[in-house]
Amino acid sequence: MAKSKYEYVKKFERNDSLLPNTWLVIRVDGRGFHKFSDKHGFVKPNDQKALELMNKCAENVMNDFRDIVLAYGQSDEYSFVLKKECSLYDRRETKIVSTIVSLFTSNYVFNWNKYFPDKELLYPPSFDGRVVQYPDDNNLRDYLSWRQTDCHINNLYNTCFWALVHSGKTETEAENVLRV
Amino acid sequence: MAKSKYEYVKKFERNDSLLPNTWLVIRVDGRGFHKFSDKHGFVKPNDQKALELMNKCAENVMNDFRDIVLAYGQSDEYSFVLKKECSLYDRRETKIVSTIVSLFTSNYVFNWNKYFPDKELLYPPSFDGRVVQYPDDNNLRDYLSWRQTDCHINNLYNTCFWALVHSGKTETEAENVLRV
Amino acid sequence: MAKSKYEYVKKFERNDSLLPNTWLVIRVDGRGFHKFSDKHGFVKPNDQKALELMNKCAENVMNDFRDIVLAYGQSDEYSFVLKKECSLYDRRETKIVSTIVSLFTSNYVFNWNKYFPDKELLYPPSFDGRVVQYPDDNNLRDYLSWRQTDCHINNLYNTCFWALVHSGKTETEAENVLRV
Amino acid sequence: MAKSKYEYVKKFERNDSLLPNTWLVIRVDGRGFHKFSDKHGFVKPNDQKALELMNKCAENVMNDFRDIVLAYGQSDEYSFVLKKECSLYDRRETKIVSTIVSLFTSNYVFNWNKYFPDKELLYPPSFDGRVVQYPDDNNLRDYLSWRQTDCHINNLYNTCFWALVHSGKTETEAENVLRV
Repeated sequence: MAKSKYEYVKKFERNDSLLPNTWLVIRVDGRGFHKFSDKHGFVKPNDQKALELMNKCAENVMNDFRDIVLAYGQSDEYSFVLKKECSLYDRRETKIVSTIVSLFTSNYVFNWNKYFPDKELLYPPSFDGRVVQYPDDNNLRDYLSWRQTDCHINNLYNTCFWALVHSGKTETEAENVLRV
Repeated sequence: MAKSKYEYVKKFERNDSLLPNTWLVIRVDGRGFHKFSDKHGFVKPNDQKALELMNKCAENVMNDFRDIVLAYGQSDEYSFVLKKECSLYDRRETKIVSTIVSLFTSNYVFNWNKYFPDKELLYPPSFDGRVVQYPDDNNLRDYLSWRQTDCHINNLYNTCFWALVHSGKTETEAENVLRV
Repeated sequence: MAKSKYEYVKKFERNDSLLPNTWLVIRVDGRGFHKFSDKHGFVKPNDQKALELMNKCAENVMNDFRDIVLAYGQSDEYSFVLKKECSLYDRRETKIVSTIVSLFTSNYVFNWNKYFPDKELLYPPSFDGRVVQYPDDNNLRDYLSWRQTDCHINNLYNTCFWALVHSGKTETEAENVLRV
Repeated sequence: MAKSKYEYVKKFERNDSLLPNTWLVIRVDGRGFHKFSDKHGFVKPNDQKALELMNKCAENVMNDFRDIVLAYGQSDEYSFVLKKECSLYDRRETKIVSTIVSLFTSNYVFNWNKYFPDKELLYPPSFDGRVVQYPDDNNLRDYLSWRQTDCHINNLYNTCFWALVHSGKTETEAENVLRV
């Protein structure tokens, strides 16, 4: 069959199976969400509806992929933890991360209207994704602590920043106050 | 700062930069689109509107990523070719593939209504993605020939199959006729 | 300086750092040692001097690389275990495995005469090497059990085989007896 | 069989096949050869016999691996070029580099006496190795130009340095003269 002559090109695909018996963390992260939240008038520092939409996306991803045992989100990012013995897609890195980031994105656009019935989605948002392997439970816990600490620090800053802005300062003035 | 104690977990991220000076092909592929096209009553063998939607997604991906020099699609898949000297995201594999598959997916849901104004999107569709590196022009051409041949063979089969079905045969009977 | 014009070629080197916090096992394995042991008249089933030479090589490798915490050898192979927190050569895979296999090989040739003072080394022997990462202690223990079981099975077979041969059977006859 | 229970540990081995249709360059490099050449009293700036020994090792490696089409050496390093279509060991990176570096090392120790009949080898020398993939002929040529330029610059410096030292300056004085 004519097909076979070109099929050799499949051999250029890399086998990217991840190490067995490690926790797999897939982190999905908004691309250009600073601009996106501006354009869509998200409430500052935290837009309740936008966070609920993120949670909904994560919930649907978890319902689809039962190997996910834990998810943690903040702002425009979400981390999904696949259990150590997970054999999803033979643990192929690109297959796992691309499918999860795609399903998350799809849910974001699909469910937009339910959370923002009065606000039109102006353009299609996108996310990137990555996979990190953690060999033991302490590493995984520290990963989650890292994201949680990051969340806390950002929230602390943003809460103060927007309180200053809402009290009448310009954004530049607010930045200068908090720099100290 | 409290943050630093946990930041060591970043060291578990793999540096996945692809080889310089190779053509990069990103192929986006529908996940469970057999069922998806059934549920949404796509015309068989080819649904003109569904193909136009795919083309629209590809067009928007190309407008966003100017390093893409060529795209080729068929059915529920699309291939994007990044030029050899492309330095997008430092050629990091997961970053590139996750962003492109996400943007493609986002466009699919976002533009659904423009192509199917009378057909509700029943659930969020998703795609997977992969990256393949091709060292020389012949390999790239053969990759494209491979997808084109695949497209041709599938279309030939599907055209005959659905012609038989539309003429009154059952799907099983049509399959048996074409098996010979 | 003229040098810089070509230095871009260094960018084609892959960053091959291994995952932190995993046990690293480097296994060195004789290349073509069936023929090598024949040509050098090794005593069957086990040549005491040849095994002592292997042990000597392993000992010298361990003295040089203090991150190695354990070594296990049999026949023409040796496994070296690097501790989880090992940062030797920034955990670069190829650097680690190539250096260890080279040092092992060098010791083999260098020390040959001490173990075989009356037997000339006829040609330079060589070894290959590989690295495997094990996330937890059970995996590592099972790796060592795997090699030990392999050693036991091979020794059982070889002991019987050579006992039959030494008792007057041909090698083919001995094989047939043990096949049952 | 008892063996099977532990054999799962083989699944932790990574598939490290290199990209097809690329030039493969394996560079072998002396480990601690500054000290090694001092201890063995190599003639400065270039020891003819030491270079001939390196060439002999390379020659034997090339005779063993017929896929090597070109080799280039200087000082304590040697580069081996495997042709693009080479399928040696299924292009497995670690297997290729470990075997070549081992055979090179083995030859170095094995042939030492032929080149230095009056000089005892004091301890076993070792080498590291790496593999780099080059997609096209220009990249490969530039790689070789890079090593050749490096060789030229080092030789120029070393020739001047040792001429100054042999003329009565201390090594520190010679360094200072050449720094300008």
